[in-house]
Amino acid sequence: MKRLVAAVLAGLLFPLFSSAQEDSVVIRQIVEDVLIRGKAYENLRFICKKIGPRLSGSPQGAMAVKETARMMREMGADTVYLQECMVPKWVRKGRDTASLVMANGKGQPLKITALGNSEGTSAKGLTATVIEVKDFDELERMKDQVRGKIVFYNYPMNPRYIKTFLAYSDAGKYRGGGASRAAKYGAVAVIIRSLASNPDDFPHTGAMRYDTAYAKIPAVAISTNDADVLSSALKKRMASEVYLKAECGMQPDVLSHNVVGEIRGSEFPDEVITVGGHIDSWDLAEGANDDGSGCVQSMEVIRVFKDLGIRPKRTIRAVMFQNEENGLRGGTKYAELAAQDKKKYILAMESDEGGFVPRGIGVSSPDSAKTARMKAWSPLFRPYGIEEISNGGGGADIGPLSKLGTVMSSLTPDSQRYFDIHHSALDVFENVSRRELHLGAGVMAAFLYMVDKYGN
Amino acid sequence: MKRLVAAVLAGLLFPLFSSAQEDSVVIRQIVEDVLIRGKAYENLRFICKKIGPRLSGSPQGAMAVKETARMMREMGADTVYLQECMVPKWVRKGRDTASLVMANGKGQPLKITALGNSEGTSAKGLTATVIEVKDFDELERMKDQVRGKIVFYNYPMNPRYIKTFLAYSDAGKYRGGGASRAAKYGAVAVIIRSLASNPDDFPHTGAMRYDTAYAKIPAVAISTNDADVLSSALKKRMASEVYLKAECGMQPDVLSHNVVGEIRGSEFPDEVITVGGHIDSWDLAEGANDDGSGCVQSMEVIRVFKDLGIRPKRTIRAVMFQNEENGLRGGTKYAELAAQDKKKYILAMESDEGGFVPRGIGVSSPDSAKTARMKAWSPLFRPYGIEEISNGGGGADIGPLSKLGTVMSSLTPDSQRYFDIHHSALDVFENVSRRELHLGAGVMAAFLYMVDKYGN
Repeated sequence: MKRLVAAVLAGLLFPLFSSAQEDSVVIRQIVEDVLIRGKAYENLRFICKKIGPRLSGSPQGAMAVKETARMMREMGADTVYLQECMVPKWVRKGRDTASLVMANGKGQPLKITALGNSEGTSAKGLTATVIEVKDFDELERMKDQVRGKIVFYNYPMNPRYIKTFLAYSDAGKYRGGGASRAAKYGAVAVIIRSLASNPDDFPHTGAMRYDTAYAKIPAVAISTNDADVLSSALKKRMASEVYLKAECGMQPDVLSHNVVGEIRGSEFPDEVITVGGHIDSWDLAEGANDDGSGCVQSMEVIRVFKDLGIRPKRTIRAVMFQNEENGLRGGTKYAELAAQDKKKYILAMESDEGGFVPRGIGVSSPDSAKTARMKAWSPLFRPYGIEEISNGGGGADIGPLSKLGTVMSSLTPDSQRYFDIHHSALDVFENVSRRELHLGAGVMAAFLYMVDKYGN
Repeated sequence: MKRLVAAVLAGLLFPLFSSAQEDSVVIRQIVEDVLIRGKAYENLRFICKKIGPRLSGSPQGAMAVKETARMMREMGADTVYLQECMVPKWVRKGRDTASLVMANGKGQPLKITALGNSEGTSAKGLTATVIEVKDFDELERMKDQVRGKIVFYNYPMNPRYIKTFLAYSDAGKYRGGGASRAAKYGAVAVIIRSLASNPDDFPHTGAMRYDTAYAKIPAVAISTNDADVLSSALKKRMASEVYLKAECGMQPDVLSHNVVGEIRGSEFPDEVITVGGHIDSWDLAEGANDDGSGCVQSMEVIRVFKDLGIRPKRTIRAVMFQNEENGLRGGTKYAELAAQDKKKYILAMESDEGGFVPRGIGVSSPDSAKTARMKAWSPLFRPYGIEEISNGGGGADIGPLSKLGTVMSSLTPDSQRYFDIHHSALDVFENVSRRELHLGAGVMAAFLYMVDKYGN
C-alpha cells in the first residue's frame, strides 16, 4: 500500500487518475491504514489506564505531557516540543458528600460532586434550607427568600434537542454562573442539576466561575436521579434542609505545558496546519472521551502521514492543549505564541466532542470562498460516514487562533452518547469503540491531507 | 401535546398547515414523546436484567414471551396474543474450554465458545493436531492433510468495509458452513475465528448448520486475540495440537411462541403493518443489542400511538419473533399464518441491527413506485439524524413475508459498534444508550405513522 500511495503522491499514476479520483485513492489509503494499523486506541488505553485522571497542575497532568511527547517522538514526528504555560491548580480533597435532612432528623445520602474551580465548604460542612428554582428568572422572582439558603438549580438538559450540544449550552449557564448569581442575594451554596442527558446516579462536574463582586460560595452538581429525589422531597415537605461537605479549592498557579509534535512542511514550512485535542481532564474518571480521544486522534494524523510516507507541503502540528477544562490557558498561550512568530496559521482542527462515530466536519472562516472550497470535498468523505462538510467549525482550544484569521474546523462525531458520560465517573476507556475512534482519526487525517494539498 | 396532536390529526389545524408541515408536526411529537416519556429503555432493562439470556426453548425464553405480552397489554394494545411454533432446543452444558498443547507438554488456555447448533465433544474432550486455513480455497488445496485434524478457519472480518454488515456476511460463511466443509475431508472438529471487529478476548458464538451428508463434528469460535495466539504458535511450531471440550447439542423441538400486540385499524383493519424484533437471544449475555433493542423499540410504537391518541387507519402489529438466532421458526410461522388469513400484509419493518443511533431507513419492494413514495419522505426524517430513506430494507424475521408481496423495511442504525459485542458476553444492557435507543424507536414509530397515513 505504501508503494501505491507513494506512486500516487509522486504523480506517477497521474495519467490514470483525475484529481478527484487521485484524492479518493489517497483518502481511502489513509482511512484504511488507520482502521487497520492505527495506534490511537492503544495510545488511549495507555492515557486512560496508565495515567488516568489528569487535571491541569496534577502529577498525572505532568505525566500526560511527558508520555504524549514520547508517543509523538515514537511516531516519527520531525520535532516534538513543549510550550510553557501557567495553569490554575484546583484541588479536590477527599470525597464530596451530601444528604437530605429528613423531617424525622435522619439523613438520606445524595450523590454530588463539587464543580471545578469551586471553593469548598469547611471541613465540617454546612447545613442550610434549600430553595429550588427552575431558572434565573425564578431566582430573580424569589431573590428576597434566598439569603442564608442553598439555591438548587433544577434545570434539565432539554431532551428535544437532537444536537445534544445545544442542550448543553442551554443548561450550562447554571453550572457556569449560577453560584455568583445566587451569592448576590446571600445564598450560602448552590446545587446544580447535573448536565446529563439521562436519568442516572452519576454527578457530572465541570467548570464554574466566580464573579468577584460576590462571595465565593461552594457549588456542587447532583446526579439527575437525586435531583428528582431532592425536588420531590422539597415539594412533599419531607425535607427542607441539606447537609453539604466538599473540601476543595484553588491553589496558586503552577507551570504546565502544551505538547506539540510536528511534521515540517516540504514546500511551505511556515504555513501551519494545527490539529489538536486537550490533554487535561476532569478528576472523576479517565477523560477517555473528553478528551483523550481528541488527543490520540490528533497524534494519529502524524503517525499515518509518517507511516504512509506522505510528506506534507505545509507544516502539520498535532497539539495536546493544556487546561481546556478549567482555564483554557493552553489554547490561549498557543495563540499568543502564534501571534508572535512569523508563520501563517492557515487552518486549525479540533476534536473535542468525544471519540464517537464521525458524522460531519465543520469549517468556519470569515472568507466564505475558503469554506466553500472545503465543503465541495464532501462527496470524497461520504464513503466514511461523513454526511457533509458544513459551516460551523471550531473548538475552545483553537478558538483564540481565530483572531489571526485561521480557518476553524472540527470533527463532528455523533452526539447522542456524549452527555451520558461527560465529566462523570463514566468517562472511561471502556466507553470508546476502537472502530469509531479510528474512523474519526482517519477522517481527520484525510481532511488535513486535502487542506495541505490544496492550501488555503 | 396530546391535544395538539389530536387537533392536527382531526384536521382542525389543517388550514394552517400544508400536508408536509402537518406530517412534520406529528413526526416531531412522536419522536419527542419517545425521547422524553419512552419506556423502551426501562423495558430493555427488565428483559436484560430480570430475564437475561433467552435462547429459544429455554425457561428464560418462555419467561420473555410472558413478560413482553404483559408489557404490550400494559401499553394498551387492543389485543395481545401468542402464535405457537415449535423451536429447536440447543443446550450448552457447562463451560466450554480449550487449550494449546505446548511443545513442553503444558496447556495454555484459549478462550472459546461452542457455536450454536453444534454437537459437542465427549465429556472428556478431544485432542488433535490443528491445521490452519485462511479460507475455503486453502481448505480445498490442503484437503488431503485434513483427516483426523482440527481445522482452524482464521478468516478475519475485513476492517475495510465501513458498513460492517458486509464484513459479517463475507466472513460468516466459515461460521455457518465451515464444519461440514471440513468434515467432508475427515476433520474431527473446527475452530472459527470469532466474527468480531476488534482484537479482544471474547469469543462470539452464532448459528452453524450441518450438511447431513457429513459427520456432525464439533464447532467452536475462538476470541480474535486467541486466534492470533493460536496462529502464531502454529507458525512458530511452539504447538501443533489443541485440546477442546464443549458439551452441548440438540434436543427435541419444543413449543414456543411469537408474541403479537396489535392496535386495530380504524378504517382498514385487514391491512396489516408489522413491526418487530426477535425476542430470543444467544446464551452468553443479555441479548441487549441483539435483539432486545428491536423488541422494545417495536413495542414502543404501540405505546406512543396509544399515549398520543393516534388511532391508525390500518392495523399496527408489534411482533416479538421467536427463534431468529438458530432456526427462524418464528418468522417462518408468522408468514405461514399470514398466507392463510384473509388480510393484506402491506409493510413489515424490522429492527435487528442493534439499538445504536439511527442513520437510515431501508425499504425494498418489487414495486419501485412504492419505495419511491417512501424515499420522498427523507427530508421529514433528517432532523432526527436519518440521512436517507433508501433501497435495501429487510430482515431475517420478516423475510418470509416478502413472498406475499409485503414491502420490507428496516431501521439502519450506525454499524460501527455492533460487531464489537455481537453474540458475545459483551452484549449487555450497559452497552445501550437510552437516547440512541429511543431516537431509533421514535423514528420507527414516525415512519409507520406515515405508512399508515398514506397506505401502500
